[in-house]
Amino acid sequence: MHFTSEKRFDDGVLERAFTLDEIPGFLWTPESVTATTPLILMGHPGGLSRMYPRLAARARHTVSAGFAAATIELPGCEGRPCSADSLRARGEMQRALAAGEPVTPEVIDRLILPLAEQAVPEWQALLDAGLELPGIGGPAGYAGGFISIGLRMALLEPRIAAATLFAGSFVPRSMLEEARQVEIPLLVLLQWDDEGNDRQLALDLFDAFGSKEKALHANLGGHTGVPESEGDDVTRFFTRHLK
Amino acid sequence: MHFTSEKRFDDGVLERAFTLDEIPGFLWTPESVTATTPLILMGHPGGLSRMYPRLAARARHTVSAGFAAATIELPGCEGRPCSADSLRARGEMQRALAAGEPVTPEVIDRLILPLAEQAVPEWQALLDAGLELPGIGGPAGYAGGFISIGLRMALLEPRIAAATLFAGSFVPRSMLEEARQVEIPLLVLLQWDDEGNDRQLALDLFDAFGSKEKALHANLGGHTGVPESEGDDVTRFFTRHLK
Repeated sequence: MHFTSEKRFDDGVLERAFTLDEIPGFLWTPESVTATTPLILMGHPGGLSRMYPRLAARARHTVSAGFAAATIELPGCEGRPCSADSLRARGEMQRALAAGEPVTPEVIDRLILPLAEQAVPEWQALLDAGLELPGIGGPAGYAGGFISIGLRMALLEPRIAAATLFAGSFVPRSMLEEARQVEIPLLVLLQWDDEGNDRQLALDLFDAFGSKEKALHANLGGHTGVPESEGDDVTRFFTRHLK
Repeated sequence: MHFTSEKRFDDGVLERAFTLDEIPGFLWTPESVTATTPLILMGHPGGLSRMYPRLAARARHTVSAGFAAATIELPGCEGRPCSADSLRARGEMQRALAAGEPVTPEVIDRLILPLAEQAVPEWQALLDAGLELPGIGGPAGYAGGFISIGLRMALLEPRIAAATLFAGSFVPRSMLEEARQVEIPLLVLLQWDDEGNDRQLALDLFDAFGSKEKALHANLGGHTGVPESEGDDVTRFFTRHLK
């Protein structure tokens, strides 16, 4: 983890930009760490510059509740390379969305499955690097968007002890089967009128998760309309499970 | 409101049993009231003796968050009279449940519609009497079970400014239309594996509510398995909307 710049907010949060194997990312921590602070990985749909304002706000809220937070760019976004087939699938998805047509399961598979394959080891490397930092340790969490990566991290990465998943992106149908094997506590956030989300699939996915402790918080509104009170619900969820 | 007994808990909550037009009920308040305290009506499926432990626990939690709480018995329960047709419908429902058969919409209508007709004016009288007590005032809330009564109170009673509804009882299909006219903030609690609840109808009902601010919190587990953390979510919801 190679730090490239730092910024201090007036609420005592320290933000550091870094690269990790040439992947750009951000780390948010308290200015001084006294006790061991659990790390929350902040998931997102890709495009760190575009997502920065929302991610930084969520991260500062997370740090003020006693956690560290970190994120990295996804494959294929903002100059990061990705396969020609992924680029084609993304083009087909964008054409379908622009035309108001449904995105077919076949396009979703071709877009999401290779991306999740590539991204999960990168997020595991982020966890490796984050947990080596002084003051950061203990069980970790995954919070936020790109539910397919969150699901894989919840399933494959034993250091992820709890996750809040934002049901706001396309999910390959085959992941319903993987969801049945997930066992960690989950909080799933669903925007009831999300333009880019299949509500029934999100409900089926929630139903499929094998976790004994799982909750779904659905709120009225579109993709970016998650109410502020949910930010508190998320940090309380992690406080219950990581502290 | 004629008080018949009182009990003091060690957490400073005062519980008073009362009758109101011969209907038994309970009022829970702080031992001494300094500021104006909003009143939460505590809904339940009927049978105050049977429900008492859960209702009293919820009420004490509610009072500790700065509210007063009150409830009354439902028509047809524990010696309260109800119509012969309601008794017949209840018998048919119990037979169906015991046989593991679905309860038909026709039986639900015959059971719930007259009961809600009779109960709503009684809960409005509870609101009249509660709001006349010293220290209690301001906007009021409805919390808990018997979603049909809660829905009608949310729709018809302008003093109810916010409601948390427990999607755990049978709902006449005609109430989906009434739900569209409800406009107050709502938090709907759904137990994902509730034995006595139609999950799809609960989701349809949540979808139907006309409120601009509504949230659904679904948790894994059966009818009585609502996790403790939801009690905090409910009081935070009322704090946002009634204070």
